[in-house]
Amino acid sequence: MDDRTYTADAEPGDTVTVAGWVHEVRDLGGIAFLILRDTTGKIQVKFEVEEMDDDLVETGLNVHRESVISVTGDVEEEPRAPTGVEVTPASVDVISEADPELPLDPSGKVDAELSTRLDNRTLDLRKDEVKAIFEIRAEVLRAVREQFRELGCTEINTPKIVATGTEGGTELFPITYFGQEAFMNQSPQLFKQLMVGSGLERVFEIGPIFRAEEHNTPRHLNEATSIDFESAFADHTEAMDACEAVVKAAYEAVEENCQDELVALDLADEFEAPEGDFPRLTYEEAIERINATGELDEPLVWGDDLPTEGEHALGQDVGEHYFITDWPSEIKPFYIMDKDDEVSTGFDMMHPEMELVSGGQREHRYDHLVDGFEQQGLDPEAFDYYTKMFKYGMPPHAGWGLGGERLIMTMLGLGNIREAVLFPRDRQRLSP
Amino acid sequence: MDDRTYTADAEPGDTVTVAGWVHEVRDLGGIAFLILRDTTGKIQVKFEVEEMDDDLVETGLNVHRESVISVTGDVEEEPRAPTGVEVTPASVDVISEADPELPLDPSGKVDAELSTRLDNRTLDLRKDEVKAIFEIRAEVLRAVREQFRELGCTEINTPKIVATGTEGGTELFPITYFGQEAFMNQSPQLFKQLMVGSGLERVFEIGPIFRAEEHNTPRHLNEATSIDFESAFADHTEAMDACEAVVKAAYEAVEENCQDELVALDLADEFEAPEGDFPRLTYEEAIERINATGELDEPLVWGDDLPTEGEHALGQDVGEHYFITDWPSEIKPFYIMDKDDEVSTGFDMMHPEMELVSGGQREHRYDHLVDGFEQQGLDPEAFDYYTKMFKYGMPPHAGWGLGGERLIMTMLGLGNIREAVLFPRDRQRLSP
Repeated sequence: MDDRTYTADAEPGDTVTVAGWVHEVRDLGGIAFLILRDTTGKIQVKFEVEEMDDDLVETGLNVHRESVISVTGDVEEEPRAPTGVEVTPASVDVISEADPELPLDPSGKVDAELSTRLDNRTLDLRKDEVKAIFEIRAEVLRAVREQFRELGCTEINTPKIVATGTEGGTELFPITYFGQEAFMNQSPQLFKQLMVGSGLERVFEIGPIFRAEEHNTPRHLNEATSIDFESAFADHTEAMDACEAVVKAAYEAVEENCQDELVALDLADEFEAPEGDFPRLTYEEAIERINATGELDEPLVWGDDLPTEGEHALGQDVGEHYFITDWPSEIKPFYIMDKDDEVSTGFDMMHPEMELVSGGQREHRYDHLVDGFEQQGLDPEAFDYYTKMFKYGMPPHAGWGLGGERLIMTMLGLGNIREAVLFPRDRQRLSP
Repeated sequence: MDDRTYTADAEPGDTVTVAGWVHEVRDLGGIAFLILRDTTGKIQVKFEVEEMDDDLVETGLNVHRESVISVTGDVEEEPRAPTGVEVTPASVDVISEADPELPLDPSGKVDAELSTRLDNRTLDLRKDEVKAIFEIRAEVLRAVREQFRELGCTEINTPKIVATGTEGGTELFPITYFGQEAFMNQSPQLFKQLMVGSGLERVFEIGPIFRAEEHNTPRHLNEATSIDFESAFADHTEAMDACEAVVKAAYEAVEENCQDELVALDLADEFEAPEGDFPRLTYEEAIERINATGELDEPLVWGDDLPTEGEHALGQDVGEHYFITDWPSEIKPFYIMDKDDEVSTGFDMMHPEMELVSGGQREHRYDHLVDGFEQQGLDPEAFDYYTKMFKYGMPPHAGWGLGGERLIMTMLGLGNIREAVLFPRDRQRLSP
């Protein structure tokens, strides 16, 4: 698009104009090197102080780090240069001068706290290993959408401003909407279900969700990216198959297309796409295995939700992605179909470190669904826009929601989920 | 995924289980036909009243329209059937019975108001021509993303909860965010600009935007899908090239991959992807041509914004997609780079019916940008999270935002932008 040459494309013998950021200037006396960085890499620019025009040398050696410049000159082979080539400049143009004091060092030589990094994301993303996270994130989204299309899904976009939350009034951000009370949606759950009863039958959505949870942990966000799937005429086992296919497709695409990024993150050797089927443990097996690890002070009993330490102990024990199925009905949402009086079709898909996915077959029977709302203490009337469609031919259906940032975080072993978001939102952070 | 056979795949000689919705039952006396509909099409199920099991016949002929059923039986050739085959049922299973009274007729025989359709989107989307809009929408999003990747863009996701709007406090929906005042973002403008100064350099985002405008027209939404592009080291002409490439890619993908949907919309004959370059008119040429049409009571003079009737007259005159460039600086946002004292690098891209895109080269010089905020009556301090990054090496850059729903609306000749959204949000409509 722009007519500069990317640094990665500069070949010996070419005369090029390269443009980007001043990564570093090393003045060795009679000779000086400026390292120019652009999105494709870095290139060495050589200044021979005695032999070159004074203005040119002065410009090149006095420009502040992280300024934007363009350099025109001949590319020559130079085995001692980092990329094997260097540019001898005929002209240097300072396009956008940087302040000499930077709030963050993009060369990475000086470590920065996460909060400083997030306050200065523009500079932070000039580091190869940070940029790599977001190149991988983009590739994951691409691969996931492609896999959904292979599964026969239609992409949908559902509203983020809603009259009611999915599971009632807790944990919702209220909005003033033309004088009416409204909320930012915490999940596309109800809308994607409405779509499986339409002619679309099988849908996916990747979009923002908003949760007013007062968590303050390394794995919760108040605005996150949800990857949602829902299919007519599917049961929970088929939804699990789709879930496994999507997660594997994400890993495989990163393995295939992001080797440079994995190198930048120092993950090239250890990164592996999951192979084989994800084990499917029942809830009962899960609590038995957790109890057997002896990691919990109190053994778990039927009906307990899994505490974080329990999830962690089980994750260590299993050592790969796995499902937990056959959850007690009472700890799964009312819109999940029950298998019998005690056990539901709900499932979770787990990375050894944390839960990634929650799903199940849905309750598609109108009377049961309305009863569910009432048992939950919710007013079915308020959800009439949703429930009434269940009276007009709603097929059996199943689906799930996958936390996009958790997928990236666990895939890349990031210590904090905020590292997987350009501009995270939490209780303390509202800008940038 | 599910083990039924899609109706489109049922071949003579097969024994199949098909499942879907009861589209129609025609009882001709001794013989009756049930038309079963699924996402791939329709199939005829034949009941021979005298020769078949009474229970089977009774189930098949008494089931209400739009109920979900499954039918197992042999497929035979039948030239008089709508698809050339029919199923002789061995069993019929009613999976989800529909109420006999439907709020909307999915067969399309009875017209419905748009508001009734939007209240009952599940049923509305059982109509081929409505489903087709959303299949095309999904294909447009796929093709647009692919084109962005071909242009070297990285996909980004920016926050929808923000501390300040792009252009100040008007037309924003306020949120209560953990006791702080916040807003739903009206544009990713500031965030995508922050990313061109990072190592990503060239980015795109497709996501929701929120505008508290009190419009109530067939072409405004309060929640819409914005298709955003921003590139470092690009000027407005290069941004226009990218814009043209993206819009053409959308049309070409629909032409290539959505013929069935175009047939359903009765557009197969007239649909054409734009060919050749979009004409680029200056603002000055644009007002001259509008004045020459004689459609306006008052001729336009330099500095006037283009009224809707003016846009319309010009669109009729040009007859294809076109750009308007060289707008007066005073009617473009302050973050658009000026060419000189009078003229800016701002541009609009127009469909003959309406504006689709607004873009330009951006002001990347810190001092000019801060002055711009002040001249706009905005407090630069409140935007410090954004402006401060312009002190640390911000390259020249350009970009644009394209209204996703307007693209679909104009592409398919829809009369109301709400037809291009599953669950539109306007001043009156907050659910479903």
